[in-house]
Amino acid sequence: MPEAVETLDGWYCLHDLRSIDWTSWKHASSDERESAIHEFHQLLEKWNQTEQNKEGSHALYTVVGQKADFILMILRPTMEELNAIETEFNKTKLAEYTVPSYSYVSVVELSTYMARGKDPETDPEIQARLKPILPKWEYICFYPMDKRREGDDNWYMLPMEDRGKLMYSHGMIGRKYAGKVRQIITGSVGFDDWEWGVTLFAHDVLQFKKLVYEMRFDEVSARYGEFGSFYVGNLLKQDEIESFLAV
Amino acid sequence: MPEAVETLDGWYCLHDLRSIDWTSWKHASSDERESAIHEFHQLLEKWNQTEQNKEGSHALYTVVGQKADFILMILRPTMEELNAIETEFNKTKLAEYTVPSYSYVSVVELSTYMARGKDPETDPEIQARLKPILPKWEYICFYPMDKRREGDDNWYMLPMEDRGKLMYSHGMIGRKYAGKVRQIITGSVGFDDWEWGVTLFAHDVLQFKKLVYEMRFDEVSARYGEFGSFYVGNLLKQDEIESFLAV
Amino acid sequence: MPEAVETLDGWYCLHDLRSIDWTSWKHASSDERESAIHEFHQLLEKWNQTEQNKEGSHALYTVVGQKADFILMILRPTMEELNAIETEFNKTKLAEYTVPSYSYVSVVELSTYMARGKDPETDPEIQARLKPILPKWEYICFYPMDKRREGDDNWYMLPMEDRGKLMYSHGMIGRKYAGKVRQIITGSVGFDDWEWGVTLFAHDVLQFKKLVYEMRFDEVSARYGEFGSFYVGNLLKQDEIESFLAV
Amino acid sequence: MPEAVETLDGWYCLHDLRSIDWTSWKHASSDERESAIHEFHQLLEKWNQTEQNKEGSHALYTVVGQKADFILMILRPTMEELNAIETEFNKTKLAEYTVPSYSYVSVVELSTYMARGKDPETDPEIQARLKPILPKWEYICFYPMDKRREGDDNWYMLPMEDRGKLMYSHGMIGRKYAGKVRQIITGSVGFDDWEWGVTLFAHDVLQFKKLVYEMRFDEVSARYGEFGSFYVGNLLKQDEIESFLAV
Amino acid sequence: MPEAVETLDGWYCLHDLRSIDWTSWKHASSDERESAIHEFHQLLEKWNQTEQNKEGSHALYTVVGQKADFILMILRPTMEELNAIETEFNKTKLAEYTVPSYSYVSVVELSTYMARGKDPETDPEIQARLKPILPKWEYICFYPMDKRREGDDNWYMLPMEDRGKLMYSHGMIGRKYAGKVRQIITGSVGFDDWEWGVTLFAHDVLQFKKLVYEMRFDEVSARYGEFGSFYVGNLLKQDEIESFLAV
Repeated sequence: MPEAVETLDGWYCLHDLRSIDWTSWKHASSDERESAIHEFHQLLEKWNQTEQNKEGSHALYTVVGQKADFILMILRPTMEELNAIETEFNKTKLAEYTVPSYSYVSVVELSTYMARGKDPETDPEIQARLKPILPKWEYICFYPMDKRREGDDNWYMLPMEDRGKLMYSHGMIGRKYAGKVRQIITGSVGFDDWEWGVTLFAHDVLQFKKLVYEMRFDEVSARYGEFGSFYVGNLLKQDEIESFLAV
Repeated sequence: MPEAVETLDGWYCLHDLRSIDWTSWKHASSDERESAIHEFHQLLEKWNQTEQNKEGSHALYTVVGQKADFILMILRPTMEELNAIETEFNKTKLAEYTVPSYSYVSVVELSTYMARGKDPETDPEIQARLKPILPKWEYICFYPMDKRREGDDNWYMLPMEDRGKLMYSHGMIGRKYAGKVRQIITGSVGFDDWEWGVTLFAHDVLQFKKLVYEMRFDEVSARYGEFGSFYVGNLLKQDEIESFLAV
Repeated sequence: MPEAVETLDGWYCLHDLRSIDWTSWKHASSDERESAIHEFHQLLEKWNQTEQNKEGSHALYTVVGQKADFILMILRPTMEELNAIETEFNKTKLAEYTVPSYSYVSVVELSTYMARGKDPETDPEIQARLKPILPKWEYICFYPMDKRREGDDNWYMLPMEDRGKLMYSHGMIGRKYAGKVRQIITGSVGFDDWEWGVTLFAHDVLQFKKLVYEMRFDEVSARYGEFGSFYVGNLLKQDEIESFLAV
Repeated sequence: MPEAVETLDGWYCLHDLRSIDWTSWKHASSDERESAIHEFHQLLEKWNQTEQNKEGSHALYTVVGQKADFILMILRPTMEELNAIETEFNKTKLAEYTVPSYSYVSVVELSTYMARGKDPETDPEIQARLKPILPKWEYICFYPMDKRREGDDNWYMLPMEDRGKLMYSHGMIGRKYAGKVRQIITGSVGFDDWEWGVTLFAHDVLQFKKLVYEMRFDEVSARYGEFGSFYVGNLLKQDEIESFLAV
Repeated sequence: MPEAVETLDGWYCLHDLRSIDWTSWKHASSDERESAIHEFHQLLEKWNQTEQNKEGSHALYTVVGQKADFILMILRPTMEELNAIETEFNKTKLAEYTVPSYSYVSVVELSTYMARGKDPETDPEIQARLKPILPKWEYICFYPMDKRREGDDNWYMLPMEDRGKLMYSHGMIGRKYAGKVRQIITGSVGFDDWEWGVTLFAHDVLQFKKLVYEMRFDEVSARYGEFGSFYVGNLLKQDEIESFLAV
């Protein structure tokens, strides 16, 4: 029986994508809209405080195309906090004008490969990767994925050594994009419908395409990757919210 | 022709997942909301009584992410009782503010492997597993699954002896999690769209991921497992309902 | 080229599944509700008359879980009558409070195997099976299915003799359940999205699971069966409708 | 590289399926309903005129089951005319009480096999088949389909000669139903989600099942056919519209 | 490990498909409708100006069938501009009467094959193809696609040389349609759910079918092509908008 790689797990993660019901938003009174935006800012301020305290992190991006209008990515130490944040947002006035479009529940994950000879509980680099402060880079790309289990292309039937070699060369591609693309892998086996979530951040949106396309020719993706929907978006800074929602 | 394993079957089971229509809930009068919550508490009290009488069991958890806001898992001796409970809930005031998001119909199932040399009708351990009082542990994980029937990976074409060996080693992984994860298998062949429902309870939500991930490398899952959606949630104690629904 | 088995075809069949919009039903006046129920009873009385005249048959069951609240199964000599009944129901007051959830169009079908040496046009047993009066047993189970056509598992490429042998042993499993499960096979090639509908009736709902599970290990299902959604329900007697709909 | 068969293409075709919102239709005033029906009759009259001028054809059938309430099949010389008709219908009063349920865009197609030694531009039989006046037979059956491209079952990788032989024997089955089933093949590669639409007309609805079932054992369907949803319906004569819509 | 072909990437591209809610549009006052149309014209004028300045391009076509009523195809130098245009449209009065039906996010892409010996940054032909002014031809066809990765038909496991040869002969088919069909390939790996979007323009809508059908017999499509939904439409000139929307 092939052996499972042990994982290191960090903060829990909720990707929460919403579409705006523009028609009802426009029909709201300007007072209503103002107070909805104000309340949302207060929520963000609270989350900023949490981030400054290194007790969590979050990101807010608009999403291009009809799949959603914005994405909130939230990291917290416990699943309860994610649930509480989701419910708190659902109770806001702004949420009355949004429609849920997709969500993803996972946990920041590192393979134990990178922890060799280190104590993951205390090593600062590992801790920083398990509890990452999300970069405020210009672009986000999110997609969930599985490792394939089909006929002769069954990742989970490969010996661990083979999987290790394949993942190593896969990782080499990622390294070529260091500084250009920052990647956060979250595991979702037992939490959501795919096995992993991949969240990428970049300064140049084209780097997402270059990275994912190059990886697709790598055996790990070519033979063993199954991909869900891709979501791409632009950073929505807190001081741009008002103009984004201005009608 | 491969022979079917006989199963022992216990209480019938309904997983009932609902999303809350927060906007209309907020727009309801506070009297309306109070009376909806009060009525729901009365329903839960009735179910608590049933559970104390060992005539059934139930669990209530919030669900993380947009797939649902809460899950009710109900166990009862007959299919009629499940249907009656479902309909009773549908007629409550609270239900007016919820939207059905997913449900699953099944029956608690044990394979006859574990009943060797025992009389399942009277053996207390077997009876307790067929008519389980659901643990009030902090986390729930639910997912439906099939055994694959594709090309060379056809579970139902394997000789019973091979299936038995595979299931035995699969079960060994489960045992490693004893005390950490409690698992309830319900059979749904002929009742719902997948062949089994798997419900897991844990004190540490991460154990779901560890268990399901480790099992995925086992041949039973790797070659023969097909999985539906995964739902993960936090225990919603009866005295937390009011704050969960406070707007 | 493999030869098609000829079929004997009887009454046309509509499975019509509906969900109740409980919120709007509750908000209707009690007069409105009473008159809706009264009108529905009149429709059922008309159908009862048709059944007594042996010009058709019908069954009414509630459905467990969120897929639907009730199922109407209607048998009639012509497709026009099915369409007329469906439209007549759509025009009722009760229908205003229901939402279509699934339907299935098919025709009662017997393989010519069972007609050997008999004249199907006059043989009473064959006629009774082609134009069946539906049993008012406690439980119903409905699911659509296909025979697989994938790679080496292609039912339609098998020689007729092989198919005959496989179906014979498959039928033997069904026979073991005689008296426990009554099965009505309806063909839907050219009429709906799957090739057959399977409707089972039982006094003990667990027999559905036992039968379908045992059959799954038979090569006909294991290698060649593709299954749609399963719907399971409880008999809704005419004098129980009022309490089922009481709010 | 296998060579594509050239096709002859005739009138463009729109299958437009609609469900009726019976509740809002019933709640409309009788004046409103009368004027909606009147306007629809005017539209049909215009289309009748077009058909008499042999500048197009159309068919109107009710649909059995919940997939739709009626189907309009429209043939016109240009794609613009189809679009105009669709938009014109969308602007009618009747359309306010309907919900789009499915549509299909294609063009009447003949393979060049049948044109051997003839000039398709002038040959009357070919012209009649490319620009067919739809028969007003009692029943309609519509389904879209693909030729499979999977592993060893890849239609598009077969040599043209093999495809020709397979299609010839496939066509022989169709011929057995001459006079019983009239078949119109429309091509939709580049126009809609499947490669072909198949529309059948019959006097006896059972002939659809017999024909499609018999063909399924033919290698062309058994190994290479992929089928979409099947829609079956009853002729709705113009003088039956009023009673069909009477509430 | 097979090597990825490098791509040249040009303007970002949004395909935005919308259905019109004809009922609410008809119920709007004529003033409301006029002002909605006027505002839409202003938007188009602004985009026309952008196109004249060669800072982007756009196309507007009606769509045949129920999948959508119209498609906006927008090209811009940055992802932010696409997002801004989408949001600007969402805030218009016309958008209140539309329902999003599908969208696609991609970027104009050329393979480096065609850039041999040229400097893509300055070569006028390459620049014109990377930043194309969309032709105002009578018909549009849009569909997304993937290269297959299944068993023995895995495009991404082929050596680059083989892929190059296959793509060359594939391209030869396209060349036969020069002057008849203009093709714009946009890459969407990392941006949307398929790997490429294909947008075709033609003076004769039948050429879409001929081209896509002929290509389907080419090994690149036959063995390696996976296709999404096809959308086909007619040019909607700016001076036809008023009559298209007249009710």
